Amino acid sequence: MKGGEKKFFSHDESHGIKDFVNMNWIDSSITAVKGFKASGVACGLKKDEQPDLALIVSEKMASAAGVFTKNIVKGHSLQLTMKRMEKGQAQALIINSGNANACVGETGMTDAKTMASLVASKINCKPDDVLVGSTGVIGQPLNMHAIRGGIEKAVSQLSSDTKAGHLAEKAIMTTDLIPKEAVVRFSIGEQAVTVAGMAKGSGMIHPNMATMIGVIAMDCAVSQPLLAAILKRVTNRTFNRVSIDGDTSVCDMVIAMANGLSGAGTIQKETAEAEKLEKAIEAVCTRLARLIAADGEGATKLVEVRAEGLRSQEDAFKMVTAVAKSPLVKTALFGEDANWGRILTAAGYSGANFNPEKIDICIGSLKVCENGVALAFDEAKAKSILQEKEIVIKLLLKEGDAWDRMWTCDFSYDYVKINGSYRT
Amino acid sequence: MKGGEKKFFSHDESHGIKDFVNMNWIDSSITAVKGFKASGVACGLKKDEQPDLALIVSEKMASAAGVFTKNIVKGHSLQLTMKRMEKGQAQALIINSGNANACVGETGMTDAKTMASLVASKINCKPDDVLVGSTGVIGQPLNMHAIRGGIEKAVSQLSSDTKAGHLAEKAIMTTDLIPKEAVVRFSIGEQAVTVAGMAKGSGMIHPNMATMIGVIAMDCAVSQPLLAAILKRVTNRTFNRVSIDGDTSVCDMVIAMANGLSGAGTIQKETAEAEKLEKAIEAVCTRLARLIAADGEGATKLVEVRAEGLRSQEDAFKMVTAVAKSPLVKTALFGEDANWGRILTAAGYSGANFNPEKIDICIGSLKVCENGVALAFDEAKAKSILQEKEIVIKLLLKEGDAWDRMWTCDFSYDYVKINGSYRT
Repeated sequence: MKGGEKKFFSHDESHGIKDFVNMNWIDSSITAVKGFKASGVACGLKKDEQPDLALIVSEKMASAAGVFTKNIVKGHSLQLTMKRMEKGQAQALIINSGNANACVGETGMTDAKTMASLVASKINCKPDDVLVGSTGVIGQPLNMHAIRGGIEKAVSQLSSDTKAGHLAEKAIMTTDLIPKEAVVRFSIGEQAVTVAGMAKGSGMIHPNMATMIGVIAMDCAVSQPLLAAILKRVTNRTFNRVSIDGDTSVCDMVIAMANGLSGAGTIQKETAEAEKLEKAIEAVCTRLARLIAADGEGATKLVEVRAEGLRSQEDAFKMVTAVAKSPLVKTALFGEDANWGRILTAAGYSGANFNPEKIDICIGSLKVCENGVALAFDEAKAKSILQEKEIVIKLLLKEGDAWDRMWTCDFSYDYVKINGSYRT
Repeated sequence: MKGGEKKFFSHDESHGIKDFVNMNWIDSSITAVKGFKASGVACGLKKDEQPDLALIVSEKMASAAGVFTKNIVKGHSLQLTMKRMEKGQAQALIINSGNANACVGETGMTDAKTMASLVASKINCKPDDVLVGSTGVIGQPLNMHAIRGGIEKAVSQLSSDTKAGHLAEKAIMTTDLIPKEAVVRFSIGEQAVTVAGMAKGSGMIHPNMATMIGVIAMDCAVSQPLLAAILKRVTNRTFNRVSIDGDTSVCDMVIAMANGLSGAGTIQKETAEAEKLEKAIEAVCTRLARLIAADGEGATKLVEVRAEGLRSQEDAFKMVTAVAKSPLVKTALFGEDANWGRILTAAGYSGANFNPEKIDICIGSLKVCENGVALAFDEAKAKSILQEKEIVIKLLLKEGDAWDRMWTCDFSYDYVKINGSYRT
């Protein structure tokens, strides 16, 4: 699925999604958030002069929280950012694409620190307040000459224009084909608050975390522990529910920054405002997560896998994860073949506890299996459902009320093509 | 890798494999085992009049043991066989391909029982002594009219010719491109003992168990508990070390039958003879397992992933499993791209405990990463290694002496093609 934003919110039946239909969606970028400037420039890390260096700066120090990859191998830039996030504050974020700055030895940490220091010296803050992200190929030292020039240019082009935000988004993309941005606005008292997000991610995508970078900026004031808690919960329900290929990268991070410049009072724990904020952040992250799935490497379809009626949430999670990861399910979806036996098979080996004689399977609105037994179904109807750009697969039990969902995509020739020669 | 048997035993450095070089390998089929007859006929379940019904009969009742899929969804034929194996004896095995006899409701069990009864009535044994296997599409009732005719034909064609065994092998293949048979002979006292195996498996392949069926026949006499114990251990070291795509099917089984017709005395626990037998069975199963990996759907290469020097066997297993499953690693191998960052990434998210600053990675004889840091390496040499039909990837730690290995293959366009339209 390429483009066609509105479609991503068309499921009335989808838990979570329909709630966001009435959100006040803004067609803008991260610079829609008060006090945030951005830029995206080409410094030569990517071929063909594509933007590869993004800078995001808040006018004033922001509360900051982060969620990081659980891969025990971690890129150098990521390690630096994790350390700097401990204090819960940040003012700027510099991200390069085209090189992951990972597994290059001591140089890697030195380079990451240099990137932050260069930015700090130019925007007048402490190096400690600058976060660094890097995404791309592993095991090659950064071209610091290119980056030095790039940072100079990026600072000089910092702007609060919508376009500047779009360019920053472009600069963090790797194999992504569509930019991933989402902005919502809501009010706290008399004050308008804006939450904007941007993300990259297309391959090596799986929970905890994908090869993704996400930046969520907001202009409300929010206590740091609350921001961290909300980000963790929302990430779990959104970015951790996307699987492209089951691979988890060494460089993933989602960073949230809240600078308080909207003028609304500080949002505290367990208030109606906190709920509003969480919903806004979830709306933004849901949209980004679905865009990541839809833009999966080689994807031709966005697929939502849902499991409902299970005994425990853990069972539901195991089931959707196995189905969403199965190459056999995903190639069948690419081939528009209603091979539900593979869906049941994946559920069966998922480790989820369920009674195989109580499972129904639906592909879109078509029930193809009832109580574990094949139903005679209209192949033509199945085909027409599978030709859609957005497909919902449901596994329905009658054993409890736990449910979960995961977004994924189909598995096509292009996935193989893209990944057969990524590095060289 | 298609064909080229000898290559599969060329690694002097591979634990376990080199031990089998001096085995007395026989170029034959399952009928090389004294007292075993076989046949393979086309009854119309597969298109194009390909053999789709295999019958294997022992002249006399055999000790029997089985290892079965851990998928909680189980095909009807498999369920029947699991039940019948409880008594540890069997005389015949009827296997159809082209249809998994799974998820079709009560008919499925009735059909499986009918298959066994038809065979029993014709070869003069009890229905209980006939095992049934089915592999193919899920959710479609068996064409019992075709099977009735097929069984008649299969019984009439039972033979101890080598060719009859080859035909039986052909009849259990689904998307397999190469037949998988292995025969070894060794002596116990004055008596020659033969162990022969045949297997099918190409996609939906992963431990516990793959979409595979394996039959191991032998003419020694062996106590049933010992046979069961050996089969379990050997399966763990061989068939459970193959991963094509991470999917586990609902119809997998490996059956071992020992009929005692060699005339050698009964093999008992913990004797030199028991060791000899285990080694012979392992040789046969290793060869079959490697053939399954080499014949993975769309595979162009056989890949052995090894992890050595880890703190625990569990860590080593987790590491080789994650690397062997990673679509990103496997597409890079298809593209002959030495993208070792993906190998390290997969190790990192595998859940294995290791120090990422102590890991070396070798692609064939070429070290590409040392102590977690990229090495400058000769791209031309890397390319030439990756162009080989058989590749060994090693992840070397210096933290203990636990090791493991897994066989897999690369991930090509053809995998997508084969699986995009398997059912229709």
